[in-house]
Amino acid sequence: MAQKLLGKEVTASLNERIIADVNELKAKGIEPRLAIVRVGENESDIAYERGAVKRCETLDVAYDKYLLPADVTTEDVLQVIEKINNDNNTHGCLLFRPLPKNLDAERIENALKPEKDVDCMTERSIGAVFTGKNVGYPPCTPQACMEILKYYGYELKGKNVVVIGRSLVVGKPVAMMCMKENATITICHTRTVNMPEITKKADILIVAAGRAKIVGADYVSAGQTVIDVGINVDENGNMCGDVDFEAVEPVVSAITPVPGGVGGVTTSVLVSHVVDAAKKYL
Amino acid sequence: MAQKLLGKEVTASLNERIIADVNELKAKGIEPRLAIVRVGENESDIAYERGAVKRCETLDVAYDKYLLPADVTTEDVLQVIEKINNDNNTHGCLLFRPLPKNLDAERIENALKPEKDVDCMTERSIGAVFTGKNVGYPPCTPQACMEILKYYGYELKGKNVVVIGRSLVVGKPVAMMCMKENATITICHTRTVNMPEITKKADILIVAAGRAKIVGADYVSAGQTVIDVGINVDENGNMCGDVDFEAVEPVVSAITPVPGGVGGVTTSVLVSHVVDAAKKYL
Repeated sequence: MAQKLLGKEVTASLNERIIADVNELKAKGIEPRLAIVRVGENESDIAYERGAVKRCETLDVAYDKYLLPADVTTEDVLQVIEKINNDNNTHGCLLFRPLPKNLDAERIENALKPEKDVDCMTERSIGAVFTGKNVGYPPCTPQACMEILKYYGYELKGKNVVVIGRSLVVGKPVAMMCMKENATITICHTRTVNMPEITKKADILIVAAGRAKIVGADYVSAGQTVIDVGINVDENGNMCGDVDFEAVEPVVSAITPVPGGVGGVTTSVLVSHVVDAAKKYL
Repeated sequence: MAQKLLGKEVTASLNERIIADVNELKAKGIEPRLAIVRVGENESDIAYERGAVKRCETLDVAYDKYLLPADVTTEDVLQVIEKINNDNNTHGCLLFRPLPKNLDAERIENALKPEKDVDCMTERSIGAVFTGKNVGYPPCTPQACMEILKYYGYELKGKNVVVIGRSLVVGKPVAMMCMKENATITICHTRTVNMPEITKKADILIVAAGRAKIVGADYVSAGQTVIDVGINVDENGNMCGDVDFEAVEPVVSAITPVPGGVGGVTTSVLVSHVVDAAKKYL
């Protein structure tokens, strides 16, 4: 039976560090504060917002909500971003994306100061994941994968990490983050030929394909660690990952369950960025 | 015997297209023009400058040289960049790097308008190679590799491309550019374990390790194509690549020689960027 890499354990450890940091900041008169900007009433935005708010409350981090109607103008959203940029008491900004099509998303996303870009939406922050420059914060989901590996004591140096998925939200940045830790990285995607042959050779397999249960027993081999970034709903209406857990778990050494794996860690990573951003005001 | 992928053939084909574009531009009253900015008297800068100037002359592209002393101030270099930014008759800028240590390289490099960034020195241009956004131009050496593969009719979709080297100048961007063409990519580097085992499985092996002849016969297998980006001097004072050509050539299907491979293509890629930049004024 594979070891289960549990998000709640990683989150507990992260939260402990965050709470200590928050207490230190407050003792010095700084109250870390997140601005949450939501345009419209998208269901998944609202669900993520609920999670973020709850995590902020648990960790004693303040937040402000800016709720804008779906038909808001680009200029109006830019004014909100500008207010956040200029407010020294607000340290990070979470803006839900994708934005409605009538808005100039590129202009809005890049208007935020990189030092407040706790969710990696500006070109400069995401570019820095590639260039290695110290600008902004990396995206939360790939960092959640890294936090899991770190918490469970994985040393990536010289390991073969195979990533399935080449999105800018998970696949590409998580590959870059693993390479920064000196892993040898391979990125597979929809056009990859003989994917199981490649994934079977991985020491660590990170799956961010965005399709339910596409990784079955034929993709894995004994001794591997599998990180499943997928969040899908299966044929019975249950939440499931991109990995067929029932099939893969008996083969590999360690695996993140879905739910209970990467997902829950992401929100604490977001809050940790807010706290790190606030620390720069010390 | 392996097919030799010859830079001069690729360059001839690129040059033909460039000359046609230049003629079209001139017929419409636009004279493509490159600004070359050199600080100090670094030998390799001067050698590259000589090549770029010669290529500009061959292709009938105008150029201006801005030669600044090694002890120039950041403000003075910024003034030159600003002049280039504001000059509608100058379409691209080549600034030799690394700049002397007394200068604020980050500020200078990022001062250039991305649309004139024909050598990919701004954060935004290099970030765009990762994000896939259409900003600036990709770096010339990795694009030279792509031009060679394109000229010789390689279809990258579904191919396994292995890159040795993770620099921001070649390794990382060439991997991203191959993935954009739907190749499955692996990046190896100094910390990779059992590198020959990985490189032997490649369909296409791109070597940008920066060390003379480190890729020997044990790294390759029959049927492969090898692109050698290295430029080194061997123990006899001769120019050589990162690949041990004598050992590898009998094994593989196709290979770029050094000299005579990637190197010569780079300058034409640079000039093609200047012409593409000028086309935006049509």
